[in-house]
Parts: sequence; structure tokens; C-alpha cells
Amino acid sequence: MNSIDVQAVEHIALGAALLGTGGGGDPHIGKLMALQAIKEYGPVSLIDPEEVPDDAVVVPTAMMGAPTVILEKIPSGEEIFRAFENLKSYLGKEIFATVPIEAGGVNSMIPIAVAARLGLPLVDCDGMGRAFPELQMLTFHLYGVSATPMVIADEKGNILILETINNNWTESLARSATVVMGGAVMISLYPLTGKQLKESGIKNIMSYSARIGKTIRNAWRSGEDPVKALLGVTGGIELFKGKVVDVLRRTEGGFARGDAHIEGIEDYKGETMTVKFQNENLIAMRGDRVVAMVPDLICIVNLETAIPITTEGLRYGHRVLVLGIPCDPKWRTPMGIETVGPRYFKYDFDYVPVEKLAGAGEK
Amino acid sequence: MNSIDVQAVEHIALGAALLGTGGGGDPHIGKLMALQAIKEYGPVSLIDPEEVPDDAVVVPTAMMGAPTVILEKIPSGEEIFRAFENLKSYLGKEIFATVPIEAGGVNSMIPIAVAARLGLPLVDCDGMGRAFPELQMLTFHLYGVSATPMVIADEKGNILILETINNNWTESLARSATVVMGGAVMISLYPLTGKQLKESGIKNIMSYSARIGKTIRNAWRSGEDPVKALLGVTGGIELFKGKVVDVLRRTEGGFARGDAHIEGIEDYKGETMTVKFQNENLIAMRGDRVVAMVPDLICIVNLETAIPITTEGLRYGHRVLVLGIPCDPKWRTPMGIETVGPRYFKYDFDYVPVEKLAGAGEK
Repeated sequence: MNSIDVQAVEHIALGAALLGTGGGGDPHIGKLMALQAIKEYGPVSLIDPEEVPDDAVVVPTAMMGAPTVILEKIPSGEEIFRAFENLKSYLGKEIFATVPIEAGGVNSMIPIAVAARLGLPLVDCDGMGRAFPELQMLTFHLYGVSATPMVIADEKGNILILETINNNWTESLARSATVVMGGAVMISLYPLTGKQLKESGIKNIMSYSARIGKTIRNAWRSGEDPVKALLGVTGGIELFKGKVVDVLRRTEGGFARGDAHIEGIEDYKGETMTVKFQNENLIAMRGDRVVAMVPDLICIVNLETAIPITTEGLRYGHRVLVLGIPCDPKWRTPMGIETVGPRYFKYDFDYVPVEKLAGAGEK
Repeated sequence: MNSIDVQAVEHIALGAALLGTGGGGDPHIGKLMALQAIKEYGPVSLIDPEEVPDDAVVVPTAMMGAPTVILEKIPSGEEIFRAFENLKSYLGKEIFATVPIEAGGVNSMIPIAVAARLGLPLVDCDGMGRAFPELQMLTFHLYGVSATPMVIADEKGNILILETINNNWTESLARSATVVMGGAVMISLYPLTGKQLKESGIKNIMSYSARIGKTIRNAWRSGEDPVKALLGVTGGIELFKGKVVDVLRRTEGGFARGDAHIEGIEDYKGETMTVKFQNENLIAMRGDRVVAMVPDLICIVNLETAIPITTEGLRYGHRVLVLGIPCDPKWRTPMGIETVGPRYFKYDFDYVPVEKLAGAGEK
């Protein structure tokens, strides 16, 4: 895949929503933004990280905030360009390309819209290989890339430029600004060189998202079981099947936090699963036993269609499959686990890979 | 007065603390910063606003935050220069001079330190003629000057640059950043031209502060009553004499808020006064009757020495004089009253000038 057209946007939107693990923004709004830009400006050139010169500058673009909010506060469409252009002029450098920071319904789509409108290539790479709730939770961070200079733009026209001493300060300051600015803002951050991107990025994330989306859609058309096709293309592990019986959620400190309770069906009858989330799904518990945890991916999809369900889309009565997908090896390093492992999110246990936990179960 | 030496700093610190109306920062720390800079770099040239060319750029420098915090979190001394230099390079212009935004123990002193170290003149002018708690509460604001671009610097090395759509957004965003950064930060904001400064500033504030301080000090030396001398030089109105019996305070949303209760002595025996503050003294009530209110100045001084007492310095047992001083006429316009009148601070009554309220009393 070397360009992104309308068809590819449909595939990527579907696949990235899965990798968003419940977060990464509402897929419908994200898709609209990307589709509109491609219809107006034409397809986007998707390049491999190896095609970026070592000394060229790449600038990621994204949304920040509680995904719950963006549903009520649709971006004007201009603020992401203001964020990008302000960072460009602050850096005083030519920007070679844009790139997503994470995979998700909105954050895989925004860089497509930016690339289309500005005529820039999009790099097939991101900084998470999934979605995470905080700004220091990027593989770029693990390799010492600074999140700043960073620009925040809201839909009213306010601009903030941050230059911080470390990426945890970036997260704290940007998070509180996001709350003051209404809960959802557009950001441009982690400017990096081609060399840094090749070293610290997670490669092929857009083409992987497209492959997942295409596989699900092909299954719909061919009559194959979409969930079986999904497990095949991702190498994901089936964790649970059930019916959503309760979702407790609160918007807190700029995040959508909560628990989803699922009652087992089929092989899981009589059992329950709890999925704990902070924008993204963090922990899956089958009864009292943790069966998957960050940084591994915990995805909830519709049991019939395999369509991913975001944490804010979860409703009573949904029949779902919960699957676990091993995260990128970059996250399984000591610094990766320290940055996004269960203890960072205040859970009192060590990280155990999902494939090991799945093997330990009785099923 | 055309230069500020060590002696002048002593006078200004004392007089500005009075005009700080309880806020504006701790006079001791502010004075130390200015004295150290003058000892190291020599006296500061104090110029009249008329000496600033119309198209020259003047950049105010100040501290922002709850004065209570700065007592525990002494500035490293570097952050104010980082704020100033960052704004200068962001503007990409030569800066002709610095200027205070308000009169107060810290905020009259910081621009002296900046001017000394950078070899810049200081303009004898400010944007309040007193102290106020919020960033849009400047006469610069009344004349349409934007508070941004604004730079915030903390002692750790973090920098924020704000470009907002209006000065109320500047206040909201800067206030929440100040809280995240620990409660007290250094700022550089409201860059203005000489023309704007002449039109919107409150003139002679440094020399007025110096005159107040000098008058009090002369009274100490000559054995004259310092409080009588103070009332003379300021044209202030005696509102109450008494003993502080209770101070309720809380640090809330980045502000030091509270009430001081004073029990009358001498002519006021049997009566009580309540002074309500938000960093600065806002409202003075004698019994149930409001006798002074923002934007007029409500100052509390030691009854024997006439030394001003800040809201965070108020303690049980202090014997004090409360005086009211009419504010600058720029504040008595409809927009002035809307910006800093009692209703802005959620008091349900209209502004009445202190000299009128004093005349209405039975005394």
C-alpha cells in the first residue's frame, strides 16, 4: 500500500479502531475528517519510515482529551492545521511529513486529513502500535525524544506552546490545559528527525490497520465469521464472550475512566468479565483472575460483526468478544513496562504477557 | 526621581506593599531580589512613559500565583529572565524597557531586578495603580491591549507560551498552568508599544510608591505619627482601627482567599470590621455596612508603624488601621467597573466610591 484513498480510509478506520483498544477517539468523526480531506485534496502518499531522510523533520498530529467529549464538541476542522502550522513556524524548519502518535478511531485519521490538505506524505509508523491515554506513553519517549516543543490548539482559536523539562511535565501541563479548553483539543508534538523515527517508531501501523479492516470487511461479504477472521489476521487470543450488563464511567481529570461488566455466554456461561479502562482498556479480569493487562491490547468487538466498540460506545446488552493481542516488543522492555505497565496505572501486580496468562487459564 | 538605587528600593518596597492592598506578594522576598540585582549590576534608570518612543516595545514582568505559595517556594531567580528572554525571542523584536503590571511587594520589585540585570530602563508606570488578582484586571486590557503572547516560566525550567483569543482565556489558561506548576510562576506578558503604554498605563506609580515609603520612614525618624503621615501622603480615608481577632484563609483555584475579622478599638470600640480578600483586599464591612469596595484600595497597616500587612501576613492580635484610597479614574469607567467592580467578584451590589461611602457613615 503506497497511497491512502477513500477505500483505504474505510479499512484503516475499522482496523485502527480495534488497535485503539477502546480509546483513540470516535471512529465515525475521525473517518469523516479524513474522507472529507481526501475527497477535496486527493489521496495521501503513504511512505515507509526508511524513505524519510535521517535529518528531515517529521511532526505528529493528533487529538488530545476524553473521547467522550469529542462527541459533543466536534472539531471545527481548522484547529489541527493551526496546531501544525504554529509548530512549524516555531521550529522554523520545513516539515517533511506527518505521522500518527497512536492507532485509533480519531488519531489514525487526523494525520491523513493533515497530509491530504497540506500535500505532505504520511509515514507508515506511529509511537504506540495501539492507543494509550497519556503523552509520555510513546515509544518515541522510550528512545529519549522530547514531546516538546508542542502546540495545543482549541476550536475557539487559543494556542499554547509548551517547552518542558521532560515528557511527564508535558503530560501534566497539556492535560490541565485540555480540561480548561473544554476537554478535547488538537495537538502537534514530538517533532522528530527521520533517524529518530526509524529508531523509535512502530512500523507499518497504517498498513496493518488497513489489513485488519479489509479482512473484517471481506468476511462480511464472503459470509465467513468476521470474528474468526479477526482472530486470524491479528493473532489475537480469545479472552471472553458475553453480554455487557453494566458500564460505570466518569470523566475525571480529562480522562474517561470506568469499568465494563460482561456476563458470559456460550463457553463462558456462568462467568463474568470486568474490563477496566482509562480512555483505553487497561485490565481484563475473568472472575478474580487477571487475563490481560497493559501494555498488551485488550479489544472489545461486536460478536457478530467484529466491529470494535470504544469504551464510550459500550452499552448494556451488547454481545461482545473480548480479545487480547500481544503488544509490540518495544513495550516489553523494563522502561516500556515502567511507562505503561499495570503499576503505572496503580494496579498492584507485575506485568505478565497475555499469551502466558492465556496459557495459565483452565480453558 | 530618575534612577532606582538601594535606598529607593527600600522606599518603593514599603510604598508598593501598601498599594498592593494585601496582595502583590511578600515584600521581603521581592525586595531581596531587587536589592541583589542592583548591588550586582548597579542602579536602574527610571524613565517617564513620555520618554518611550511610540513604536518601541515594552514588556512587563511579574510573578503570578498565590502569594502564600511564594513564601515556601522561593524563585530560583532565573525563571523571570527565562520568561522575558523567551517572549523577546518569540516576538523577534528588540525590547526597549520593562514595566510592572501592578504595585505590590513582589510585583514592583521584579521589574527592577530584570531592568538591572538586563541593563534596560524601567518605565514609571503600571497597569493597575494597585494590585489585583487576575490577568485581565489591567488598564492595558481596558484599552484593548492583548495579554498575549505571554510566557510562563517555572523554577524547574518549564516554559509555556500562550496566544489566546482574549484576556479572559489568558487568565483561565495561565491560572490552571500556575497551579500545575506548583502555585507560583514568573511571567512576561502584555507586550505593548510606547503609544499603547502612554494611553493605557497608570503613570508615576514607582515614584508614588517611593514617596509613600519615604514619608513613612521619615516619620519613624522624626518621631511623627507614621499613620498620620501615611494618610497625608496618600489622601487615604481612615476606615477602622482595631485588633485582628480571626483570619479565615484557604488556597483555592490558585488564589489565597479568605476573611479577616477585626475588633474595634479607640473610636471604634464595640464595633467589628470584616475585610474579604482574594490575594488582595476586596471589600471592607463595618458591621453590616460596606464602607469600601474594589476597585478602590483597601489597605491594612500596623497601627504604630504604618507598615502594610499582606493578607498572608495578617495574624491574631495585630493592631491595625484600615484605610481606603480612591482608585485611579481609569477604573471608574463602565468597563473598569465591569472588569474589577464588586459584581465581578460575585458581590451583589453596585460600585460606590469610597469617598462617598465614607461621607455616608455616621462618624
